[in-house]
Amino acid sequence: MIRHLELLAHGSGLHEFTPQLQRAVAEADWRDGLCTLYLRHTSASLLVQENADPSVLRDLEAWLQRLVPEGDALYTHTAEGSDDMPAHIKTALGTISLALPIIDGQLALGTWQGVFLWEHRQGLRRRELLLHFAP
Amino acid sequence: MIRHLELLAHGSGLHEFTPQLQRAVAEADWRDGLCTLYLRHTSASLLVQENADPSVLRDLEAWLQRLVPEGDALYTHTAEGSDDMPAHIKTALGTISLALPIIDGQLALGTWQGVFLWEHRQGLRRRELLLHFAP
Amino acid sequence: MIRHLELLAHGSGLHEFTPQLQRAVAEADWRDGLCTLYLRHTSASLLVQENADPSVLRDLEAWLQRLVPEGDALYTHTAEGSDDMPAHIKTALGTISLALPIIDGQLALGTWQGVFLWEHRQGLRRRELLLHFAP
Repeated sequence: MIRHLELLAHGSGLHEFTPQLQRAVAEADWRDGLCTLYLRHTSASLLVQENADPSVLRDLEAWLQRLVPEGDALYTHTAEGSDDMPAHIKTALGTISLALPIIDGQLALGTWQGVFLWEHRQGLRRRELLLHFAP
Repeated sequence: MIRHLELLAHGSGLHEFTPQLQRAVAEADWRDGLCTLYLRHTSASLLVQENADPSVLRDLEAWLQRLVPEGDALYTHTAEGSDDMPAHIKTALGTISLALPIIDGQLALGTWQGVFLWEHRQGLRRRELLLHFAP
Repeated sequence: MIRHLELLAHGSGLHEFTPQLQRAVAEADWRDGLCTLYLRHTSASLLVQENADPSVLRDLEAWLQRLVPEGDALYTHTAEGSDDMPAHIKTALGTISLALPIIDGQLALGTWQGVFLWEHRQGLRRRELLLHFAP
Protein backbone atom coordinates (compact mmCIF):
# COMPACT_ATOMS: atom_id res chain seq x y z
CA MET A 1 0.00 0.00 0.00
CA ILE A 2 1.26 3.48 -0.92
CA ARG A 3 0.17 6.74 0.69
CA HIS A 4 1.11 10.36 0.08
CA LEU A 5 2.40 12.77 2.71
CA GLU A 6 3.00 16.43 2.00
CA LEU A 7 5.33 18.57 4.08
CA LEU A 8 5.96 22.31 4.15
CA ALA A 9 9.50 23.49 4.83
CA HIS A 10 10.12 27.07 5.85
CA GLY A 11 13.74 27.56 4.86
CA SER A 12 16.79 25.33 5.09
CA GLY A 13 17.35 23.18 8.15
CA LEU A 14 15.95 20.14 9.91
CA HIS A 15 12.17 19.94 10.15
CA GLU A 16 10.85 17.12 12.31
CA PHE A 17 7.74 15.32 11.07
CA THR A 18 7.60 12.28 13.35
CA PRO A 19 4.03 13.14 14.52
CA GLN A 20 2.71 13.51 10.95
CA LEU A 21 4.36 10.22 10.00
CA GLN A 22 2.98 8.40 13.04
CA ARG A 23 -0.46 9.78 12.14
CA ALA A 24 -0.08 8.39 8.60
CA VAL A 25 0.77 4.98 10.07
CA ALA A 26 -2.37 5.15 12.20
CA GLU A 27 -4.52 6.24 9.25
CA ALA A 28 -3.17 3.34 7.20
CA ASP A 29 -4.10 1.18 10.20
CA TRP A 30 -0.77 -0.59 9.87
CA ARG A 31 0.10 -2.79 12.87
CA ASP A 32 3.41 -4.48 12.08
CA GLY A 33 5.84 -4.28 9.25
CA LEU A 34 7.91 -1.72 7.42
CA CYS A 35 7.20 1.82 6.31
CA THR A 36 9.51 2.96 3.50
CA LEU A 37 9.65 6.72 2.91
CA TYR A 38 10.54 8.11 -0.49
CA LEU A 39 11.15 11.83 -1.04
CA ARG A 40 10.42 12.95 -4.59
CA HIS A 41 12.98 15.77 -4.71
CA THR A 42 16.66 16.41 -5.47
CA SER A 43 17.38 19.29 -3.09
CA ALA A 44 16.11 17.97 0.25
CA SER A 45 16.79 14.75 2.14
CA LEU A 46 15.51 12.52 4.94
CA LEU A 47 17.28 12.04 8.25
CA VAL A 48 16.72 10.17 11.48
CA GLN A 49 18.48 12.05 14.26
CA GLU A 50 18.26 13.15 17.86
CA ASN A 51 15.15 15.17 18.60
CA ALA A 52 15.87 15.88 22.28
CA ASP A 53 18.40 18.73 22.17
CA PRO A 54 17.90 21.47 19.53
CA SER A 55 21.63 22.29 19.64
CA VAL A 56 22.32 18.99 17.83
CA LEU A 57 20.13 20.10 14.93
CA ARG A 58 21.70 23.56 14.79
CA ASP A 59 25.21 22.08 14.76
CA LEU A 60 24.31 19.56 12.06
CA GLU A 61 22.97 22.36 9.85
CA ALA A 62 25.95 24.66 10.55
CA TRP A 63 28.45 21.88 9.86
CA LEU A 64 26.85 20.95 6.54
CA GLN A 65 26.58 24.61 5.49
CA ARG A 66 30.32 24.96 6.10
CA LEU A 67 31.18 21.76 4.23
CA VAL A 68 29.02 22.72 1.24
CA PRO A 69 28.93 26.52 1.14
CA GLU A 70 27.14 28.74 -1.35
CA GLY A 71 29.30 30.60 -3.85
CA ASP A 72 31.97 27.90 -4.23
CA ALA A 73 34.01 28.71 -7.37
CA LEU A 74 33.79 25.01 -8.30
CA TYR A 75 30.08 25.27 -9.19
CA THR A 76 29.17 25.73 -12.85
CA HIS A 77 25.46 25.08 -12.22
CA THR A 78 24.47 28.54 -10.94
CA ALA A 79 21.43 29.45 -13.04
CA GLU A 80 18.85 28.32 -10.46
CA GLY A 81 20.16 30.36 -7.53
CA SER A 82 23.18 30.27 -5.24
CA ASP A 83 21.48 27.75 -2.92
CA ASP A 84 20.67 25.26 -5.69
CA MET A 85 23.94 23.43 -6.37
CA PRO A 86 24.83 23.18 -2.64
CA ALA A 87 21.36 21.70 -2.12
CA HIS A 88 22.00 18.98 -4.72
CA ILE A 89 25.33 18.09 -3.09
CA LYS A 90 23.83 18.01 0.41
CA THR A 91 21.05 15.75 -0.85
CA ALA A 92 23.64 13.42 -2.42
CA LEU A 93 25.45 13.18 0.93
CA GLY A 94 22.17 12.23 2.62
CA THR A 95 19.35 9.98 1.51
CA ILE A 96 15.89 10.34 -0.01
CA SER A 97 14.79 6.79 0.80
CA LEU A 98 14.42 5.46 4.33
CA ALA A 99 12.82 2.33 5.82
CA LEU A 100 11.35 2.34 9.35
CA PRO A 101 9.96 -0.70 11.18
CA ILE A 102 6.47 -0.58 12.66
CA ILE A 103 5.65 -2.61 15.78
CA ASP A 104 2.19 -2.74 17.29
CA GLY A 105 1.03 0.28 15.30
CA GLN A 106 3.96 2.48 16.30
CA LEU A 107 7.12 3.57 14.46
CA ALA A 108 9.79 1.53 16.25
CA LEU A 109 12.22 4.42 16.63
CA GLY A 110 14.96 4.47 19.23
CA THR A 111 14.50 6.52 22.39
CA TRP A 112 16.26 9.59 21.01
CA GLN A 113 15.28 9.29 17.37
CA GLY A 114 13.03 11.61 15.39
CA VAL A 115 12.35 11.66 11.65
CA PHE A 116 13.32 14.85 9.84
CA LEU A 117 13.03 16.51 6.48
CA TRP A 118 16.39 18.14 5.86
CA GLU A 119 15.50 21.04 3.64
CA HIS A 120 18.50 22.36 1.72
CA ARG A 121 16.91 25.28 -0.12
CA GLN A 122 15.77 28.69 1.03
CA GLY A 123 12.20 29.95 1.07
CA LEU A 124 8.93 28.10 1.51
CA ARG A 125 8.96 24.67 -0.13
CA ARG A 126 6.24 22.07 -0.55
CA ARG A 127 7.79 18.59 -0.39
CA GLU A 128 6.10 15.36 -1.37
CA LEU A 129 6.73 12.00 0.27
CA LEU A 130 5.51 8.56 -0.77
CA LEU A 131 5.00 6.05 2.03
CA HIS A 132 5.08 2.36 1.18
CA PHE A 133 3.71 -0.07 3.77
CA ALA A 134 4.80 -3.71 3.82
CA PRO A 135 3.60 -6.38 6.27
CA MET B 1 10.85 -11.63 -6.38
CA ILE B 2 14.50 -10.87 -7.15
CA ARG B 3 15.95 -9.98 -10.54
CA HIS B 4 19.46 -9.18 -11.75
CA LEU B 5 20.49 -6.06 -13.63
CA GLU B 6 23.96 -5.57 -15.02
CA LEU B 7 25.40 -2.15 -15.78
CA LEU B 8 28.55 -1.08 -17.61
CA ALA B 9 30.34 2.02 -16.36
CA HIS B 10 32.89 3.73 -18.57
CA GLY B 11 35.00 5.57 -16.01
CA SER B 12 34.11 7.49 -12.86
CA GLY B 13 31.07 9.72 -12.75
CA LEU B 14 27.28 9.54 -12.74
CA HIS B 15 25.74 7.05 -15.18
CA GLU B 16 21.96 7.25 -15.45
CA PHE B 17 20.12 3.94 -15.79
CA THR B 18 16.50 4.98 -15.23
CA PRO B 19 15.40 3.51 -18.61
CA GLN B 20 17.04 0.12 -17.92
CA LEU B 21 15.44 0.06 -14.47
CA GLN B 22 12.02 0.99 -15.80
CA ARG B 23 12.41 -1.79 -18.38
CA ALA B 24 13.20 -4.27 -15.58
CA VAL B 25 10.03 -3.17 -13.76
CA ALA B 26 8.03 -3.79 -16.95
CA GLU B 27 9.66 -7.19 -17.51
CA ALA B 28 8.82 -8.17 -13.93
CA ASP B 29 5.28 -7.02 -14.78
CA TRP B 30 5.16 -5.25 -11.40
CA ARG B 31 2.19 -2.89 -11.06
CA ASP B 32 2.36 -1.43 -7.54
CA GLY B 33 4.78 -1.76 -4.68
CA LEU B 34 8.42 -1.21 -3.94
CA CYS B 35 11.57 -1.93 -5.92
CA THR B 36 14.67 -2.15 -3.71
CA LEU B 37 17.99 -1.88 -5.51
CA TYR B 38 21.11 -3.46 -4.08
CA LEU B 39 24.56 -2.85 -5.57
CA ARG B 40 27.00 -5.69 -4.96
CA HIS B 41 30.16 -3.57 -4.89
CA THR B 42 32.30 -1.50 -2.52
CA SER B 43 33.62 1.15 -4.91
CA ALA B 44 30.46 2.44 -6.61
CA SER B 45 27.18 3.75 -5.22
CA LEU B 46 23.57 4.49 -6.14
CA LEU B 47 22.11 7.98 -6.34
CA VAL B 48 18.82 9.60 -7.21
CA GLN B 49 19.50 13.07 -8.54
CA GLU B 50 18.50 15.65 -11.12
CA ASN B 51 18.69 14.36 -14.66
CA ALA B 52 17.66 17.57 -16.43
CA ASP B 53 20.84 19.68 -16.41
CA PRO B 54 24.17 17.89 -17.02
CA SER B 55 26.03 20.66 -15.16
CA VAL B 56 24.54 19.34 -11.89
CA LEU B 57 26.14 15.95 -12.51
CA ARG B 58 29.50 17.47 -13.45
CA ASP B 59 29.51 19.63 -10.31
CA LEU B 60 28.56 16.68 -8.08
CA GLU B 61 31.46 14.65 -9.48
CA ALA B 62 33.94 17.55 -9.26
CA TRP B 63 32.91 18.36 -5.68
CA LEU B 64 33.29 14.74 -4.53
CA GLN B 65 36.65 14.39 -6.31
CA ARG B 66 37.88 17.45 -4.42
CA LEU B 67 36.55 16.20 -1.06
CA VAL B 68 38.09 12.75 -1.55
CA PRO B 69 41.15 13.22 -3.79
CA GLU B 70 43.56 10.58 -4.97
CA GLY B 71 47.02 10.58 -3.45
CA ASP B 72 45.96 11.72 0.03
CA ALA B 73 48.86 11.02 2.43
CA LEU B 74 46.33 9.63 4.90
CA TYR B 75 45.73 6.49 2.81
CA THR B 76 47.62 3.34 3.76
CA HIS B 77 45.56 1.13 1.42
CA THR B 78 47.31 1.92 -1.85
CA ALA B 79 48.07 -1.53 -3.31
CA GLU B 80 45.01 -1.64 -5.59
CA GLY B 81 45.62 1.66 -7.38
CA SER B 82 45.39 5.34 -6.52
CA ASP B 83 41.65 5.43 -7.29
CA ASP B 84 40.78 2.51 -4.99
CA MET B 85 40.77 3.98 -1.47
CA PRO B 86 39.01 7.20 -2.59
CA ALA B 87 36.39 4.95 -4.23
CA HIS B 88 35.74 3.12 -0.94
CA ILE B 89 35.33 6.43 0.92
CA LYS B 90 33.00 7.87 -1.73
CA THR B 91 30.91 4.70 -1.58
CA ALA B 92 30.71 4.99 2.22
CA LEU B 93 29.44 8.58 1.88
CA GLY B 94 26.74 7.38 -0.49
CA THR B 95 24.55 4.30 -0.48
CA ILE B 96 24.43 0.92 -2.18
CA SER B 97 20.83 0.17 -1.20
CA LEU B 98 17.87 2.22 -2.41
CA ALA B 99 14.09 1.67 -2.36
CA LEU B 100 11.84 3.17 -5.04
CA PRO B 101 8.03 3.03 -5.08
CA ILE B 102 6.21 1.70 -8.12
CA ILE B 103 2.76 3.03 -9.01
CA ASP B 104 0.73 1.70 -11.91
CA GLY B 105 3.73 -0.04 -13.44
CA GLN B 106 5.99 3.04 -13.31
CA LEU B 107 8.83 4.06 -11.00
CA ALA B 108 7.20 6.85 -8.99
CA LEU B 109 10.14 9.24 -9.30
CA GLY B 110 9.79 12.99 -8.84
CA THR B 111 9.69 15.22 -11.91
CA TRP B 112 13.42 15.96 -11.87
CA GLN B 113 14.68 12.65 -10.53
CA GLY B 114 16.76 10.07 -12.35
CA VAL B 115 18.46 6.95 -10.98
CA PHE B 116 22.23 6.82 -11.32
CA LEU B 117 25.14 4.50 -10.81
CA TRP B 118 27.87 6.64 -9.29
CA GLU B 119 31.01 4.91 -10.47
CA HIS B 120 34.03 5.82 -8.36
CA ARG B 121 36.75 3.88 -10.17
CA GLN B 122 38.49 4.47 -13.48
CA GLY B 123 38.29 2.23 -16.53
CA LEU B 124 35.50 0.00 -17.79
CA ARG B 125 33.57 -1.68 -14.95
CA ARG B 126 30.82 -4.26 -14.98
CA ARG B 127 28.49 -3.63 -12.01
CA GLU B 128 25.82 -5.98 -10.74
CA LEU B 129 22.54 -4.92 -9.16
CA LEU B 130 19.92 -7.04 -7.43
CA LEU B 131 16.34 -5.80 -7.68
CA HIS B 132 13.85 -6.94 -5.06
CA PHE B 133 10.16 -6.43 -5.81
CA ALA B 134 7.59 -6.22 -3.02
CA PRO B 135 3.84 -5.71 -3.45
CA MET C 1 8.46 -10.53 10.57
CA ILE C 2 10.65 -8.46 12.85
CA ARG C 3 13.58 -9.75 14.92
CA HIS C 4 15.99 -8.06 17.32
CA LEU C 5 19.77 -8.18 17.08
CA GLU C 6 22.02 -6.72 19.72
CA LEU C 7 25.62 -5.74 19.05
CA LEU C 8 28.45 -4.70 21.35
CA ALA C 9 30.89 -2.08 20.08
CA HIS C 10 34.23 -1.64 21.80
CA GLY C 11 35.12 1.90 20.84
CA SER C 12 34.75 3.85 17.60
CA GLY C 13 35.46 2.18 14.28
CA LEU C 14 34.03 -0.44 11.94
CA HIS C 15 32.77 -3.63 13.60
CA GLU C 16 31.78 -6.37 11.17
CA PHE C 17 28.69 -8.40 12.08
CA THR C 18 28.04 -10.34 8.86
CA PRO C 19 28.18 -13.73 10.69
CA GLN C 20 25.69 -12.64 13.38
CA LEU C 21 23.37 -11.29 10.68
CA GLN C 22 23.63 -14.45 8.59
CA ARG C 23 22.83 -16.45 11.73
CA ALA C 24 19.71 -14.31 12.31
CA VAL C 25 18.61 -15.02 8.72
CA ALA C 26 19.05 -18.74 9.36
CA GLU C 27 17.17 -18.56 12.68
CA ALA C 28 14.31 -16.76 10.96
CA ASP C 29 14.45 -19.58 8.41
CA TRP C 30 14.13 -17.01 5.64
CA ARG C 31 14.84 -18.42 2.17
CA ASP C 32 14.29 -15.60 -0.31
CA GLY C 33 13.41 -11.95 0.02
CA LEU C 34 14.70 -8.84 1.69
CA CYS C 35 16.18 -8.19 5.12
CA THR C 36 15.94 -4.53 6.15
CA LEU C 37 18.17 -3.49 9.03
CA TYR C 38 17.25 -0.57 11.26
CA LEU C 39 19.65 0.83 13.86
CA ARG C 40 17.89 2.49 16.79
CA HIS C 41 20.62 5.04 17.56
CA THR C 42 21.80 8.51 16.55
CA SER C 43 25.55 8.14 17.05
CA ALA C 44 26.37 4.97 15.09
CA SER C 45 25.61 3.91 11.53
CA LEU C 46 25.45 0.90 9.21
CA LEU C 47 27.83 0.31 6.35
CA VAL C 48 28.45 -2.31 3.70
CA GLN C 49 32.13 -2.23 2.79
CA GLU C 50 35.14 -4.34 1.89
CA ASN C 51 35.96 -6.95 4.53
CA ALA C 52 39.06 -8.39 2.87
CA ASP C 53 41.80 -5.87 3.66
CA PRO C 54 41.80 -4.29 7.16
CA SER C 55 43.69 -1.26 5.82
CA VAL C 56 40.50 -0.17 4.02
CA LEU C 57 38.64 -0.05 7.35
CA ARG C 58 41.45 1.83 9.08
CA ASP C 59 41.60 4.40 6.29
CA LEU C 60 37.83 4.87 6.29
CA GLU C 61 37.87 5.53 10.02
CA ALA C 62 40.90 7.86 9.82
CA TRP C 63 39.39 9.82 6.93
CA LEU C 64 36.08 10.33 8.72
CA GLN C 65 37.82 11.31 11.96
CA ARG C 66 39.72 13.99 10.03
CA LEU C 67 36.60 15.27 8.25
CA VAL C 68 34.60 15.44 11.50
CA PRO C 69 37.13 16.02 14.30
CA GLU C 70 36.43 16.40 17.98
CA GLY C 71 36.84 19.87 19.45
CA ASP C 72 35.65 21.79 16.38
CA ALA C 73 34.84 25.37 17.48
CA LEU C 74 31.65 25.17 15.42
CA TYR C 75 29.99 22.78 17.90
CA THR C 76 27.65 24.26 20.50
CA HIS C 77 26.37 20.83 21.60
CA THR C 78 29.24 19.84 23.91
CA ALA C 79 27.48 18.78 27.13
CA GLU C 80 27.50 15.04 26.36
CA GLY C 81 31.24 14.70 25.71
CA SER C 82 33.67 15.73 22.98
CA ASP C 83 32.85 12.65 20.89
CA ASP C 84 29.08 13.22 20.90
CA MET C 85 28.48 15.94 18.30
CA PRO C 86 31.02 14.45 15.84
CA ALA C 87 29.17 11.13 16.27
CA HIS C 88 25.84 12.74 15.30
CA ILE C 89 27.40 14.29 12.20
CA LYS C 90 29.09 11.04 11.16
CA THR C 91 25.79 9.21 11.58
CA ALA C 92 24.05 11.82 9.42
CA LEU C 93 26.64 11.26 6.67
CA GLY C 94 25.98 7.53 6.80
CA THR C 95 22.78 5.57 7.16
CA ILE C 96 20.89 3.74 9.90
CA SER C 97 18.59 1.84 7.53
CA LEU C 98 19.84 -0.71 5.04
CA ALA C 99 18.10 -3.36 2.89
CA LEU C 100 19.90 -6.58 1.90
CA PRO C 101 18.52 -9.23 -0.47
CA ILE C 102 18.37 -12.86 0.63
CA ILE C 103 18.74 -15.64 -1.93
CA ASP C 104 18.45 -19.32 -1.04
CA GLY C 105 18.83 -18.61 2.66
CA GLN C 106 21.97 -16.49 2.27
CA LEU C 107 22.59 -12.74 2.37
CA ALA C 108 23.25 -11.99 -1.30
CA LEU C 109 26.31 -9.82 -0.65
CA GLY C 110 28.94 -9.14 -3.27
CA THR C 111 32.23 -11.03 -3.15
CA TRP C 112 34.04 -8.32 -1.18
CA GLN C 113 31.16 -7.04 0.90
CA GLY C 114 30.72 -7.30 4.64
CA VAL C 115 28.12 -5.65 6.88
CA PHE C 116 29.46 -3.32 9.55
CA LEU C 117 28.33 -1.33 12.54
CA TRP C 118 30.18 1.96 12.31
CA GLU C 119 30.46 3.00 15.91
CA HIS C 120 31.13 6.72 16.29
CA ARG C 121 31.42 6.99 20.08
CA GLN C 122 34.14 5.95 22.47
CA GLY C 123 33.81 3.26 25.16
CA LEU C 124 31.72 0.13 25.27
CA ARG C 125 28.31 0.56 23.63
CA ARG C 126 25.35 -1.77 23.35
CA ARG C 127 23.59 -1.16 20.03
CA GLU C 128 20.16 -2.47 19.05
CA LEU C 129 19.13 -3.43 15.55
CA LEU C 130 15.69 -4.35 14.24
CA LEU C 131 15.59 -6.78 11.33
CA HIS C 132 12.53 -6.81 9.09
CA PHE C 133 12.07 -9.80 6.79
CA ALA C 134 9.96 -9.54 3.63
CA PRO C 135 9.33 -12.34 1.12
